[in-house]
Amino acid sequence: MIHKLIILRHGESQWNHENKFCGWIDIPLTKKGIHEATYAGELISKANLSPDILYTSKLMRSIETGQIILDVLHKSWLDHIKTWRLNERHYGLYQGRDKHEVYLELGQDKEKFQYIRRNYNGVPPLIDSSKDSSIDERYNNILNKNILPNGESLKMVMDRLIPFFKYEILDKQMIQLNKTVLIVTHGSIVRSLIKYLNNISDEDISKINVPTGIPLVFELNDKGELVKPSYYLDKEKAELGIEKVKNEGLKKKESEKL
Amino acid sequence: MIHKLIILRHGESQWNHENKFCGWIDIPLTKKGIHEATYAGELISKANLSPDILYTSKLMRSIETGQIILDVLHKSWLDHIKTWRLNERHYGLYQGRDKHEVYLELGQDKEKFQYIRRNYNGVPPLIDSSKDSSIDERYNNILNKNILPNGESLKMVMDRLIPFFKYEILDKQMIQLNKTVLIVTHGSIVRSLIKYLNNISDEDISKINVPTGIPLVFELNDKGELVKPSYYLDKEKAELGIEKVKNEGLKKKESEKL
Repeated sequence: MIHKLIILRHGESQWNHENKFCGWIDIPLTKKGIHEATYAGELISKANLSPDILYTSKLMRSIETGQIILDVLHKSWLDHIKTWRLNERHYGLYQGRDKHEVYLELGQDKEKFQYIRRNYNGVPPLIDSSKDSSIDERYNNILNKNILPNGESLKMVMDRLIPFFKYEILDKQMIQLNKTVLIVTHGSIVRSLIKYLNNISDEDISKINVPTGIPLVFELNDKGELVKPSYYLDKEKAELGIEKVKNEGLKKKESEKL
Repeated sequence: MIHKLIILRHGESQWNHENKFCGWIDIPLTKKGIHEATYAGELISKANLSPDILYTSKLMRSIETGQIILDVLHKSWLDHIKTWRLNERHYGLYQGRDKHEVYLELGQDKEKFQYIRRNYNGVPPLIDSSKDSSIDERYNNILNKNILPNGESLKMVMDRLIPFFKYEILDKQMIQLNKTVLIVTHGSIVRSLIKYLNNISDEDISKINVPTGIPLVFELNDKGELVKPSYYLDKEKAELGIEKVKNEGLKKKESEKL
């Protein structure tokens, strides 16, 4: 049996636009982001894909993108699970800061900046949890707050994400219940899932970039193995988006988006 | 410990407005219904009530009402469970029909009409499940379709509703996890919950009417017993709404709303 998984990064948020580190701070979509979400829904519809359940993070930019897609698909009655396991990578003390300012603060050391941003083990400076306003009442259902991050490398993201993804989504929803799953999430989460499902090395994952709002489809067998390469539903637009992220320089307002 | 439960009937739908039996047919809110939902959110906010989880039916008029309320409360990140257990009473062959036409068809027998509408044991004529377009793909997750209704009395509604409510909502979410629960649902479901929580007799429940869009609050102790009478968040408006439902005659366009 073939099981389908549709993953996408939310549409543009206000801080993507303003070039700030966002992480767990809850920033809404821009008008462009809303259009991207609508377009993503149209792509899923045109591809005759029919999700049976929606997973998003606990952050509005992914929740809104997911709800817009369900509206476009006339499937707002689908269960919508919202979990911090799909939250963006936590950016520690960098959350809310202008990316270019951080780059200047690091002495314009491009290698150091990119190590933190893109290396599998790069960790941003940690924030004191008691001062972290991004950990708010939406996480009240988590009784042991110590499991919540205060700054993460991609490796740390995968440590909190992949067991959840493997058991709850892949094994249970997709393989056992044979559901087509739609995940609307964030750049680092999409990169983590690409790394896991394609078995990409710790080194090579730093070269993978993800466009906003273009659904990426995985087709897996009963063992959870890819039966063909994953594919974007609008290849051309995805390549433009990837190219854009890849080529964004480190100049003010042009530095790479996270 | 005191546990709070907020229950309301969705805002006005297009068929409430057109005076048709709706049941499981999926009809969207009117503009008035959207305003009612917004007002319900404002009432909950003003009363300093802070829901921790949202339950709705699988029907858009309750899902939309719930989402609007969460938007008003800035709590769209709450888990939102959508279940057929909270669906409106199934109206069998009457679904989609004008209430006045059905009244005429019953020979303008007011007693017979009201027996089916309001008596605890009144069952509408059943529909052949294979011809019931209201049972669509949204119920695909239910493997045994035989548990879905094809026409229900209020008693039959309570048989499929109360065990779910008692175990999943009251015992687990409210008493065990101490969550404030928000349920956005339908007229017959609100009546069923009022009957259950207030221990109202089979006879007396026929006199209970429910306004659209006004939150009704229950405060319960650890045994699930009321610690004071349940109360509407806008008593005056609720009474007007109840009066309106109660006094609606059986003339065309004026007959009682379900």
